[in-house]
Amino acid sequence: MYDMTIRLQSGGKCLYEQIYEHIKQEIREGRLLKGERLPSTRALAEYLQVARSTVDYAYDQLLSEGYIEARPYRGYYVCPMEDLFQIEADFQKLTEPDASRVKEERGGAGRGERPDLSPQGLSAAEDGERSAAPRWICDFSPNDIDMTGFPFGVWKRITKNILNEGNSDLFAQGEPQGDYDLRLTISRYLHSSRGVNCAPEQIIVGAGNDYLLMLLEKILGRGVRIAMENPTYKRAYRIFQSFAYDIVTVDTDQNGILASRLRQQEADVVYVMPSHQFPTGTVMSIGRRAELLRWADGAKNRYLIEDDYDSEFRYRGKPIPSLQSSDKQGRVIYMGTFSKAIAPAIRVSYMVLPRALLERYRRECYFYSCTVSRIDQRILNEFIRDGYFERHLNKMRKRYRAKHDLLLECLEPFQKKFVLSGEDAGLHLLLTARGTVTEEELLRAAEKEKIKVYGLSDSLVASAARNATILLGFGALDEGEITEGICRLQKAWL
Amino acid sequence: MYDMTIRLQSGGKCLYEQIYEHIKQEIREGRLLKGERLPSTRALAEYLQVARSTVDYAYDQLLSEGYIEARPYRGYYVCPMEDLFQIEADFQKLTEPDASRVKEERGGAGRGERPDLSPQGLSAAEDGERSAAPRWICDFSPNDIDMTGFPFGVWKRITKNILNEGNSDLFAQGEPQGDYDLRLTISRYLHSSRGVNCAPEQIIVGAGNDYLLMLLEKILGRGVRIAMENPTYKRAYRIFQSFAYDIVTVDTDQNGILASRLRQQEADVVYVMPSHQFPTGTVMSIGRRAELLRWADGAKNRYLIEDDYDSEFRYRGKPIPSLQSSDKQGRVIYMGTFSKAIAPAIRVSYMVLPRALLERYRRECYFYSCTVSRIDQRILNEFIRDGYFERHLNKMRKRYRAKHDLLLECLEPFQKKFVLSGEDAGLHLLLTARGTVTEEELLRAAEKEKIKVYGLSDSLVASAARNATILLGFGALDEGEITEGICRLQKAWL
Repeated sequence: MYDMTIRLQSGGKCLYEQIYEHIKQEIREGRLLKGERLPSTRALAEYLQVARSTVDYAYDQLLSEGYIEARPYRGYYVCPMEDLFQIEADFQKLTEPDASRVKEERGGAGRGERPDLSPQGLSAAEDGERSAAPRWICDFSPNDIDMTGFPFGVWKRITKNILNEGNSDLFAQGEPQGDYDLRLTISRYLHSSRGVNCAPEQIIVGAGNDYLLMLLEKILGRGVRIAMENPTYKRAYRIFQSFAYDIVTVDTDQNGILASRLRQQEADVVYVMPSHQFPTGTVMSIGRRAELLRWADGAKNRYLIEDDYDSEFRYRGKPIPSLQSSDKQGRVIYMGTFSKAIAPAIRVSYMVLPRALLERYRRECYFYSCTVSRIDQRILNEFIRDGYFERHLNKMRKRYRAKHDLLLECLEPFQKKFVLSGEDAGLHLLLTARGTVTEEELLRAAEKEKIKVYGLSDSLVASAARNATILLGFGALDEGEITEGICRLQKAWL
Repeated sequence: MYDMTIRLQSGGKCLYEQIYEHIKQEIREGRLLKGERLPSTRALAEYLQVARSTVDYAYDQLLSEGYIEARPYRGYYVCPMEDLFQIEADFQKLTEPDASRVKEERGGAGRGERPDLSPQGLSAAEDGERSAAPRWICDFSPNDIDMTGFPFGVWKRITKNILNEGNSDLFAQGEPQGDYDLRLTISRYLHSSRGVNCAPEQIIVGAGNDYLLMLLEKILGRGVRIAMENPTYKRAYRIFQSFAYDIVTVDTDQNGILASRLRQQEADVVYVMPSHQFPTGTVMSIGRRAELLRWADGAKNRYLIEDDYDSEFRYRGKPIPSLQSSDKQGRVIYMGTFSKAIAPAIRVSYMVLPRALLERYRRECYFYSCTVSRIDQRILNEFIRDGYFERHLNKMRKRYRAKHDLLLECLEPFQKKFVLSGEDAGLHLLLTARGTVTEEELLRAAEKEKIKVYGLSDSLVASAARNATILLGFGALDEGEITEGICRLQKAWL
């Protein structure tokens, strides 16, 4: 067991050195393993009863010697051993530029560290330690959202009121599908905002989409052959892989998934994001939707998973109802989340099951208890029911639209060299190079300007010949950052 | 879609009749399906803007006519169709006693409704509607806990303080394994209270044991042959079944699982509850523990799952450390939960992975995001870290011991006809008949006295010749209920 206890001596070496030596020794002797996270400087300082700056010094020293690495927004991690041995051997003779090269290479694994380029896999602002390694001036993450607009005050008030009721029922176990009142509220919200037709009985509330997909695996059973668009939401792809599902990929065009190609595959289930495909930003055409529904009707046990992850944010044209709203035969499994529209920490997602699958759920999965606490369900229920969610959405829609419009404006000069797409909805858009530049070249050039952008290839699940395409997320950036960031990209790319 | 909207007319029939007629029609015409839950009377009254008593009348009418059934603590559900047709046909000619017989039979499905006789599947106090069908004077559920001792005040204060910090980090996505600070706190708690040896890095925090088992499935992979005791925790059994795991059962004696029998099976993983087996209450002997660990060492990829679900409550002898604490080879997967010790709604459980599985988790499952919200993690962390958990446990230990001792005292007269066991720990004990009476007979006799008790056979996963055995849970009962309940059981059984 790795124990944070460090026996600090009052005489002799200064405190920061003692901490530094101790941790270095722990790493060298393998008690701290590669990839393990160190305690936050705050936690360690508190535990050892020393000033936080003391621990900061110790960590800085370890960092500069390459024992640990700082991951932006996440904290400090023990470096891979191979690197360590390398460093050990070379340490004495390293010149300053060489040392920075080593760090650069480790930093280069940045994309690897953040492999979940995914609509719900919001990853910024991880865990304290924001000060660690500010490598980027601007991070165009397509996953991050604007948390400054969150109505903390309201949330706090609702929480307080609920706790003040002193209702011990709140602390008792709730229904497996989620509390009825919340499901009722969600069903009404989905009906009015997304045209989804469902009774509260069809809704299953769960702690995040990942969990709901795990549950869906139990409902759908084994040996499912699932079709996914290429590119697609990589996290879902990984999850289906972990189910040992047979995954086939289907190409897309500007109208969405190529249903003609789908028919050539022997798939049982198709995973789509019709309102705003991730990462391409495509809104699936009505014709393509009808084709999909017809395909599903073509055989028994065919289903469509509609992941409606960010349909709340749409900037152009009329709102497009969900695929589920056109489904008369009970073929669509509708999934949504509050992570994007409220906050990533709100671990509440929901899934609407068609009747046939609901039966199967009740038969096969009734014993899985709900993963969301009743208090959280109750808070969320009141937040939506009392109109705060609607108001919050309206506010965020305005904000995101302003950012979106600013970004579009800033991107004007890029039009000669890039094609812009995905600009109708969501929190990111895409730039596709007209020329032969590679994605890697674009990423590197941006990195030199300390700008973090994301390549479409992260979302590819099968090879595809495409011009280099970059995703620019704007959710978490303020206007200054967008202007500055794009200005630097202009230098890098144009 | 079942719509709660009922167009109430102000003239003509009275409101309760209109509601009654509407719902009856919905059920007859199949818009409300068997097993669907009706809205709570409170919710429907609010929605329709009528007095709650109006809805109460309507539900009572539906109840008495057998269209719906009331499940204690859960609410109202549409009856199975077959029953309905039967009722429809017979309704006119039914005499009062016959009608009650029909209800009695449905009530007899009670155990079926509550199939998760399980340590973590706490099921009482489900969802409002406590008034529905008070069939039992006393319910000796082995799953229910005493919620009256919960320190709401402290919990509220911690929550308020955390929300008052206005730290928007709280609403950002946390680490997949759970926040480091909470894992650190859990690791310390486990070390001091259960002798568990682990680093925070080995801990995975998740929303309930069911979820953690699902995750464990992904870590262990397919085709696992799992050995379980017989009888065992039925919910875990169902979950492993839903994984399509090959399940073998191993008999137990008063020292725990029969390791000699285990060696005859070709199992990879064994699921045990060494501190307090559910339902038998057995504490696994030291020798048996050593045998289990040796078995695990005997081949690659063998693991022991230690479910330490209620080790906090022990009434006799020294506390017994966890199996994990004796594990030198990294064979034990340790699982625990705060549902039993704090409150069922606290959807926080944890799993301690041995290093080899931790590696696999990081390789295969790193993309599953944490299922517990950061706010909840933070509240729990402070609750434990600041000593409130310890104090709460001490208080509850005293309370449960008082109830336990009272129950033992009340059971004195039963000793002639029953053997008492499982009285060293936990929140239930067992009575095994010395004679040839069947479990069914005991349950029925108790039911006539309006006392709900639970048969051991609910936990059997393979047939076994045993004398009739009854579980008596006392967690949620007060002293008056225990005295009254046992007094009635005395009438019923002695």
